[in-house]
Amino acid sequence: MSLDPHLFGEIDPPQRLLMGPGPINAHPRVLRAMSADLLGQFDPEMTGFMNQVMALYRPIFGTQNRWTMLVDGTARAGIEAALVSLVSPGDVVLVVNFGRFGLLLTEILQRIGAIIETVEAPWGEVVPMDRIADAIARCHPKIVATIHGDTSTTMAQPLEGFGELCRQAGALSYVDATATIGGMELAADRWDVDIVTGGLQKCLGGPSGSAPITISDRAAEHIGRRRHVEQGIRSAGMVDGAGPRIGSNYFDLAMIMDYWSEKRLNHHTEATSMLYAARECARIALGEGLEARYARHASAGRAMTAGLRAMGLTVFGDDRYRMTNVTGVYIPDGVDGEGVRKAMRELFEIEIGTAFGPLQSKIWRIGAMGYNAMKHKVLLTLAALESCLRMQGFALPAGEAVTAAIGAWPEGQGA
Amino acid sequence: MSLDPHLFGEIDPPQRLLMGPGPINAHPRVLRAMSADLLGQFDPEMTGFMNQVMALYRPIFGTQNRWTMLVDGTARAGIEAALVSLVSPGDVVLVVNFGRFGLLLTEILQRIGAIIETVEAPWGEVVPMDRIADAIARCHPKIVATIHGDTSTTMAQPLEGFGELCRQAGALSYVDATATIGGMELAADRWDVDIVTGGLQKCLGGPSGSAPITISDRAAEHIGRRRHVEQGIRSAGMVDGAGPRIGSNYFDLAMIMDYWSEKRLNHHTEATSMLYAARECARIALGEGLEARYARHASAGRAMTAGLRAMGLTVFGDDRYRMTNVTGVYIPDGVDGEGVRKAMRELFEIEIGTAFGPLQSKIWRIGAMGYNAMKHKVLLTLAALESCLRMQGFALPAGEAVTAAIGAWPEGQGA
Repeated sequence: MSLDPHLFGEIDPPQRLLMGPGPINAHPRVLRAMSADLLGQFDPEMTGFMNQVMALYRPIFGTQNRWTMLVDGTARAGIEAALVSLVSPGDVVLVVNFGRFGLLLTEILQRIGAIIETVEAPWGEVVPMDRIADAIARCHPKIVATIHGDTSTTMAQPLEGFGELCRQAGALSYVDATATIGGMELAADRWDVDIVTGGLQKCLGGPSGSAPITISDRAAEHIGRRRHVEQGIRSAGMVDGAGPRIGSNYFDLAMIMDYWSEKRLNHHTEATSMLYAARECARIALGEGLEARYARHASAGRAMTAGLRAMGLTVFGDDRYRMTNVTGVYIPDGVDGEGVRKAMRELFEIEIGTAFGPLQSKIWRIGAMGYNAMKHKVLLTLAALESCLRMQGFALPAGEAVTAAIGAWPEGQGA
Repeated sequence: MSLDPHLFGEIDPPQRLLMGPGPINAHPRVLRAMSADLLGQFDPEMTGFMNQVMALYRPIFGTQNRWTMLVDGTARAGIEAALVSLVSPGDVVLVVNFGRFGLLLTEILQRIGAIIETVEAPWGEVVPMDRIADAIARCHPKIVATIHGDTSTTMAQPLEGFGELCRQAGALSYVDATATIGGMELAADRWDVDIVTGGLQKCLGGPSGSAPITISDRAAEHIGRRRHVEQGIRSAGMVDGAGPRIGSNYFDLAMIMDYWSEKRLNHHTEATSMLYAARECARIALGEGLEARYARHASAGRAMTAGLRAMGLTVFGDDRYRMTNVTGVYIPDGVDGEGVRKAMRELFEIEIGTAFGPLQSKIWRIGAMGYNAMKHKVLLTLAALESCLRMQGFALPAGEAVTAAIGAWPEGQGA
């Protein structure tokens, strides 16, 4: 039972530049915010911070939704909370699937017991809105679920008009924006979608472990039909719901709303340090200004793409719909993809991403998001990649990647 | 869509002494550990830290179990992961219920679709082992689930022989040790129980948001029968499971084990800062020595109890089975319980706890755990409580609480 605690020293990770599809390096302000003292969960200061988080995330989601808060878990926890709370067993759900995370929606919905219909695009493309409309007309879904940016394919699904299509068919809508929140525009109200979820560990520049969520009043009412109060905290006169229960307690958004509301009904114990982190991520994003922030991510993506092409590499996916914050690029013939990633890490302390499923061993995924969507980090990554490719015997024009990236970054725009 | 980010200033919570039933103040080393740089999730340094966490939590759980790791969420996430992965719909589950958290097990199991049997004790008592044996004989459960320490009642269920009883009846066993881990002895192997889960925010002195878990090989095999690999990450030649699916993706322990194993199959993105926190909590506990740590909690509980009794207050619950780290005490007649809590907070910046359900407005719950199970914090709490009671007109002997607490703390034992 004994173990020398000195066997594992004080935490001291290498300072690695994370230019993969996420997680990325957290902003130093976020790391510092997490070292603030804890508070009791019903302390007025603590509930005050919770209310601030609600206010801070509304502009980030592009919404006025009252119910804008955090789910305590990674981005995937937010997805499951949204789906298990929106969807009842036997509901028809249409999944817009164009990558690994569309498949994830499907697999979560299978477990919920939904009847799943899909409308699909090959990896590297998005689903045209008219095909979504046709699919809705064909299967009469109660809920339509999609991904905004799917990092597995680097594609961003256009969502203008998406919510309206769902609404006209009487369906509720869900969007997973884990990979775009804080880096590409979210417009929950203008898109007219019902639930959007995200995570901190990509464009928001925080650690994984907290999932921001926004819920329309319409969806809140829908979820409220399955609202219950736990027996152990039910006090005299408190009314419990009469409907069926949501399939999960931890992910029961009706209970989580009761906890974040003035009722302050105890559910989980809010993950205080992660809430501090989420709050600081939002303050940084709003302090920069969302328009400026989205422009910075777009510049970084443009510069990265220009640099990769100047090396003679081929960028993956439909150019019109590529995410700004992560770029897929084909591993050239004769180059050992994992060997390059290893050399990047060991020689330059830079991480670039591998790929999943059908793209495994075919592309690298190179991110530039949040605190890392900066000109010097893009240039460092390109210069290092050029060196590692050359070591593998790949012939490429010396120095042109960096020059092209500098040229692609808009004059005068901060980095 | 715009919001002045300066509206909400830099994070700056008041420095409040949290002497409730948890969360409590985190150890400063834990807060500092969270400000370390992040790493990519498959970075060898990161997977190295994951392996260290596995090694560090084995002695804390009192186990040699290979599968000892973290669930990314609050303690309640660990409970739901254990239950949804152990229990299939239609399974008979026996719940040993003696408080609010026993009720929580029941309510999670209802959602899973289990057939629930209970063996109960009134709030303030525990369930005798022979009654558990009778209940097992009566209902032939597939799983038996209990709470170790239920903070709602301050009772700790004795667990010597518990696992053996379950084993003899062919049942798997689950113990929620959220409120005792790091403060009272856990002996997963000696108790012969299959899954034990915890949280950081009580005796481990960390923030809420990470749930340590240990799983016996027998339980891992049972869970493995419902193992699947997500379609989106399935590569050529990878074998998917053939059995039914676990009801949740996020809480699918088979997938979480695949992620923590050498296979490193992607599931969620590990909550890195919370993992750093969990690692530091364990290093601190093992550095102090578990026996010394349990003795310190016992001393703090004994001192608190002696002090409360010296004030003329009545301690709640069966003295033989009270948890060492949280003490329930009746609110005296004529005293406004919430008024006292408010005065404690506003005058002394000390938080003590209210209560739930049948004990609401009847008792306070006063904790002394983790970084707060220290002599001076017990004495400060008692002195402040004495002042606040006197302001309410409650007559009590001046200064005797502190004297009694000092007397109850063992000579020479560090605090």
